[in-house]
Parts: sequence; C-alpha cells; structure tokens
Amino acid sequence: MPYTPQQLSDHQDIRDVLHAYCRAIDDNRPDDVIELFTDDCEYHYGGDLGSFDTKEYAYRFFRAGTDKIYKRSAHYVSNIEIAFDGDDAAESITYLNAWHEFHEDIVDAWIFGRYVDRFVRTAEGWRICRRRVDTMGHDQWPREVTYMERNVLPARVK
Amino acid sequence: MPYTPQQLSDHQDIRDVLHAYCRAIDDNRPDDVIELFTDDCEYHYGGDLGSFDTKEYAYRFFRAGTDKIYKRSAHYVSNIEIAFDGDDAAESITYLNAWHEFHEDIVDAWIFGRYVDRFVRTAEGWRICRRRVDTMGHDQWPREVTYMERNVLPARVK
Amino acid sequence: MPYTPQQLSDHQDIRDVLHAYCRAIDDNRPDDVIELFTDDCEYHYGGDLGSFDTKEYAYRFFRAGTDKIYKRSAHYVSNIEIAFDGDDAAESITYLNAWHEFHEDIVDAWIFGRYVDRFVRTAEGWRICRRRVDTMGHDQWPREVTYMERNVLPARVK
Repeated sequence: MPYTPQQLSDHQDIRDVLHAYCRAIDDNRPDDVIELFTDDCEYHYGGDLGSFDTKEYAYRFFRAGTDKIYKRSAHYVSNIEIAFDGDDAAESITYLNAWHEFHEDIVDAWIFGRYVDRFVRTAEGWRICRRRVDTMGHDQWPREVTYMERNVLPARVK
Repeated sequence: MPYTPQQLSDHQDIRDVLHAYCRAIDDNRPDDVIELFTDDCEYHYGGDLGSFDTKEYAYRFFRAGTDKIYKRSAHYVSNIEIAFDGDDAAESITYLNAWHEFHEDIVDAWIFGRYVDRFVRTAEGWRICRRRVDTMGHDQWPREVTYMERNVLPARVK
Repeated sequence: MPYTPQQLSDHQDIRDVLHAYCRAIDDNRPDDVIELFTDDCEYHYGGDLGSFDTKEYAYRFFRAGTDKIYKRSAHYVSNIEIAFDGDDAAESITYLNAWHEFHEDIVDAWIFGRYVDRFVRTAEGWRICRRRVDTMGHDQWPREVTYMERNVLPARVK
C-alpha cells in the first residue's frame, strides 16, 4: 500500500493457495489439502473441534470431513485481506461461505466464517503455518457453534 | 486493460477498502466504517433508507445498523470491477451477498446487492466519496425492497 | 508463480471478463454476454442443457434464460484460479454461487457450480473460447442436476 510488483505476485500466489484449498476440499482430495499447510501448522477450529498441530491428526481430520461426514460441499472464499510481514511471511483474513450436504439424513447447512491465517514462503511456495477459524454465523449447522466476538479490537490485518 | 503496475497496486488498495468495510461492519465497529468514506461522501441507499451526505448522519446510520438492528452479519463481496478515471479517481461496481441475524425475533435475511461506488485517492489512501446500493434480490428481507432496473443501459464500469 | 507484471495485468483482465459476464446476465443484457465469448466458443452445460458451439444457439440460449425464465438473478463468482498457457491463452476455474428468481410461480433457487473455462487473447481483449459448467450442489433447483464427480483427478488448473 502501495504494493510492489513482487508483493502483487505474492498476493496472487497466496490467493491461489486459498482457492486450491477450497477446490481440494470440495473435490474430496484431503491429501492435497494437507500439502497446502506446513508440516507443523497450528489449526485452531474452536468449539468442540478444538486445536491441533500434527500432520497425522490433520490427515485424520480432513479425510473424515471431506469423505465420511460431507457428501458434497462448496467452499466460497472472498474478502481476502493480506498484510505482509517482511518478505517471506504474511497474515491474512478470508471470508468463507461454505455449503455442506451430509451423508446422514440431515438438512444441508451453511457456515459463515473467517479463516485467520499466517502464511510463510517455503521452497514449494506459500504455505499456511497457522489457521484459526472464526464463526460469524450459520444456517442449519447441526453442531453447536462458538461465535466470534463482535465490537472488540480489530483482527490483525489492518 | 492492460493495467500498469501502479494501477494494479491501486486496484488492490481499493479492494482492501471494500474488504475493510465489510469486516468493520461485521465486527460492529461502525466508527471504523466511517473512516473509509470521505467526510462529504454521498450515500444513496434507495427505498425508505434514502440518501444522505453528512458524516453526522453516517455515524447515526451505521451505529444503529451494526449494533441495534443486527445481532450478527456477514457481508460477502465479490465481482469487483474497477475503472480508473485519471490517476486519482475510480468508479467501481461490487457484488454484495449479505446475511443478517436480527436482535428482534425475525428470521435471518439475505440481501443481494451491488455497491456502485466512486473512489478518490486521499492523503490517507483511497476513500469512497459516493456510494449507491442497487438491489438485485433478497431472501426474507423484512423491509420493502426497491429493485434495480434490468435491461437498461449498462452501469458505469465497462 | 511468481507472476510477471504482464501476467498480473492479464489475470485482472480475465477476471474483468468473468465479472462482466455476471453483470450482463443479471442486467438481462444477453447480447452483451455473447460478446465475451469467441464466435466459435464451445459451451458444455451438462445434463439436459447439453453442449453447443454456434453463436446463433448461444443467442437463443442466453436470451431465453435471462429474459423468459429468470425474473431476477445474482451470479456471484469467486475462487478464480487462472493458469497461463503461453502468452495468449489461459485455463481458469471459477466458483459460481447463483441465485435465481423465476417468472413462474416456483421457489427461488441457487446453483453451486464451477465455470471451467479456456480463454484466448483476441484483438478485442481476452475472450472465453470454451466453457464447461460443473455442478457442486444446489438449493431448490427445479431441474434435474448432474453432479460433478468428486475424488477424481484434479481439474486442469494446478
């Protein structure tokens, strides 16, 4: 702000990772999902999904979600804000509007959330090294939801 | 078309303002919302929300909306089109898909709209100096809606 | 990855076409829709909408859709991934979240899809020369839906 050509390229690269994540989730390719995170990534989902930071648990988590729980899904991301922290790291906030159809006989549900991520540049490109999911709202979500706080300090990205 | 590196940077800066707007609204930080508009910004909401152009009214408008009317919200923006008008001004059209949960006991509602904005470059960065909201549709909206015209001259951005 | 300034400009130009498409559809300007495709564009809609590749049929298709079938619509696109194929061609995948209100007395419906497109650079700018629509899901869609396969080879864009 202003952005250099290098930052504009990095900005697009980071958005590409966020989009590849959604497509791999909705394609039911959980192992491709994991490749977009660093091996030691911290995941903070909140509520009863909790936090974890091992690749082994991440495999179990995403393989169960995309295959066993959800029959179909569509993860729409938008409102992507990225703040660079030096040349090789960035913080980002991304809006998520995600539709889910379940294998079980329960009604389709939407979650309205935010991915609050930290990215690092690796030899393989930008990867997510910390993800927190904040929940703004939902429609028919079948589990208990922990809402984000409103009217508090702004989140990290200015 | 083609875009210069300066225009690509400005394009991202303007999108950053649109995203910051949504996040401040959904965070219930109305005073941060106002900072994204010029002091003499013209707001055209249409229908019974009408038009206004003073900062004092804008404070009342956004403080009432994010705090007293809406309990929770999620403002998704996409389809952002920006046409530069010289080096320091731009016209933009942005699609809005906005979910609202109310304090009152009425069903959650969606509005499907467009922000038709004029931006100017200021010492503090790009700011919105005119906003018109066009309504494409809605789901369960509790107020009367004035729809935009279809099949008329294209809106400003080519 | 990294992107050159030329590619970043082309990336934005291509997104501009995708956004102009949605706006022309939702404005009920079908003839402006057609101008965004090459004259010999291949359209693959799947299901009973089938495939076609003549401009004459495209006019009939879009004129019927935006005017006779849909009373109002809102086509939200996001998650736009673009892979360049040389200097003058590109493959893209775009998420679509499209709301439709019908002239007939049937309930509003959403389609959750993907535009899988091939773009070429022409004298008039980037144009779509092949479009396939993949369906991830729907809400209240009144026609039979053919879902995309999940857990298969990734789509073209890496």
